Amino acid sequence: MESIKSQSYEVHLGELAEAALRQHIAKKNYSKVFLLVDENTKMHCLPVFKKILDHPIDSIFEIQSGEENKHIQTCLEIWEKLSGHDGDRKSLLINLGGGVITDLGGFVASTFKRGIDFINIPTTLLSMVDASIGGKTGVDLGALKNQIGVINQPQMVLVFTEFLKTLDPRQVVSGYAEMLKHGLIKDAPYWDELKTQGNFTDAKSIQRSIALKNDVVLQDPTEQGLRKILNFGHTLGHAIESYCLENPNKKTLLHGEAIAAGMILEGYLSHELKGLSRLSVQEIKETFSQHFEPVELDDDDIKAILKLLKYDKKNSHGDINFVLLQSIGDAVTDVKVPGELFYKAFAYYKE
Amino acid sequence: MESIKSQSYEVHLGELAEAALRQHIAKKNYSKVFLLVDENTKMHCLPVFKKILDHPIDSIFEIQSGEENKHIQTCLEIWEKLSGHDGDRKSLLINLGGGVITDLGGFVASTFKRGIDFINIPTTLLSMVDASIGGKTGVDLGALKNQIGVINQPQMVLVFTEFLKTLDPRQVVSGYAEMLKHGLIKDAPYWDELKTQGNFTDAKSIQRSIALKNDVVLQDPTEQGLRKILNFGHTLGHAIESYCLENPNKKTLLHGEAIAAGMILEGYLSHELKGLSRLSVQEIKETFSQHFEPVELDDDDIKAILKLLKYDKKNSHGDINFVLLQSIGDAVTDVKVPGELFYKAFAYYKE
Repeated sequence: MESIKSQSYEVHLGELAEAALRQHIAKKNYSKVFLLVDENTKMHCLPVFKKILDHPIDSIFEIQSGEENKHIQTCLEIWEKLSGHDGDRKSLLINLGGGVITDLGGFVASTFKRGIDFINIPTTLLSMVDASIGGKTGVDLGALKNQIGVINQPQMVLVFTEFLKTLDPRQVVSGYAEMLKHGLIKDAPYWDELKTQGNFTDAKSIQRSIALKNDVVLQDPTEQGLRKILNFGHTLGHAIESYCLENPNKKTLLHGEAIAAGMILEGYLSHELKGLSRLSVQEIKETFSQHFEPVELDDDDIKAILKLLKYDKKNSHGDINFVLLQSIGDAVTDVKVPGELFYKAFAYYKE
Repeated sequence: MESIKSQSYEVHLGELAEAALRQHIAKKNYSKVFLLVDENTKMHCLPVFKKILDHPIDSIFEIQSGEENKHIQTCLEIWEKLSGHDGDRKSLLINLGGGVITDLGGFVASTFKRGIDFINIPTTLLSMVDASIGGKTGVDLGALKNQIGVINQPQMVLVFTEFLKTLDPRQVVSGYAEMLKHGLIKDAPYWDELKTQGNFTDAKSIQRSIALKNDVVLQDPTEQGLRKILNFGHTLGHAIESYCLENPNKKTLLHGEAIAAGMILEGYLSHELKGLSRLSVQEIKETFSQHFEPVELDDDDIKAILKLLKYDKKNSHGDINFVLLQSIGDAVTDVKVPGELFYKAFAYYKE
């Protein structure tokens, strides 16, 4: 399975990942090797990872899993532990977990003593196909996702698909949503394959998603143009995710669950504004509906979600810019959406 | 007064600064212009600055002055204010204040929505000659200085020497210590001039210090070699500063006061280990003693300070590396110091 060259680092899969990790650690002569886990990866992934690493770990830091712990107080705890365990500029932090661990751990490493090395080992399908590329690190600010962070690249990203066997099926399907998104925005044949084939957790499908995201990021590292297409489904999806996270009466959604809803909604907007065919919108809705339960939203929920929209970090000068589809595999950016269409989109979603 | 070209930005002084600021703001079309001040710069510098800026300020955020407020909770307050005032990726943060404001404000801007533009306007002599160059941003972690931060460059740095007239004399002298350091590590004639001439707050002296630091930083942007010489006096100086900050029985020191002590101590170590002449050590001690009161330290204080040393962020693999002088104007890096010499150095300091 070929490695994928990103900005300053590579994504290695399977056996190559194991060899790359060992070589890197041997070469770098780190003063300390620290590992960040949550209770799930500590139980299910750590025993496997210890055999892969083949090097002593100086300290293991454990945080609680879940988006609700992705905030600055958790960073403060880890900074203090790094400092208390004599972490210095030549230390390494290995982040073993899903997107919360790799985003938060990446931010902690990027800011500890103005930046130490880190390696990301995504253990969820979502973090393998999404957080593995792009160098985005950070944490939430209250209910607002990823408001605090930096762009900084890990030393390497290692993908071991065996970790996926330890996941709850709901977690796996969450990652599938991002893979489908990659097809929708840039690769219609991949969309067709993914939606018809039963298995999407094989290394080949995962590698194709990573390579697709990597192509986009390399063409636009600072998110000035093309890279925005990766936000398809995310403008409304993030707002729904934030709303459900801060509202005690709503079930907390996984990221993929929220953007699955976001993609149906923004698919509808694409039909209204960018000529995406009725058939394609229907195909998008049906594909996601097969794998994701609809999010229950009443009129008050929808109003509150639309209010949250204005805080989305991609906005500037108060305008809300959407990524929409002209056809499956062909996305356009910076589309302004008239306010009344949002309600029609939610009506279509609830049909 | 010529501007100084640094990595991706320039340091402008006086009238050029005013013109550069206005041009930049006109060109960039920021969605919002935010200003960070403390109670002192709000009172003394803001009225002057408003006339210079000649552009509306969307919101002014005020924090409490002092190193004890340079921590992550203060950042959290400003992130929340930025978010609450509809700050987005196209917003600008202007930091008007001393090193705490420019370090902390720079970090807040570098991490808000993964980085927004910021401009630093240092209002103390110390921040003009020190924090203006190098792109270091960050905050303290407990008593440990600058443990959390990133390297990131402002859009520009603007130096208006008239702000120095608003300062307490103790603040001004604190900056003088860094200027003297610049002479000690790289420019013996500058050292001679500074220590004999009465005035060191003129734009010409300040520009020379900034240019000297800039030369060093440009030759070694990632602090792999030469740049370490800027740490002369800082290894022990930081430890003394941290110790006095966290100890309620000790007077909190200004940065320059702590490194003045650090430079006498490390001057002594330079004599013992690197052949700095007895006469030069004496000259260093006398020069700093004319301007800085000795820090009162008993044996227990000294023990505690040496314990803090190991946390200094420049250490790696547990070794403590010092910058020492071979002669005035000629520094060497990565010198290991035998433990017993520290006590002799403190004895010399107290003589």
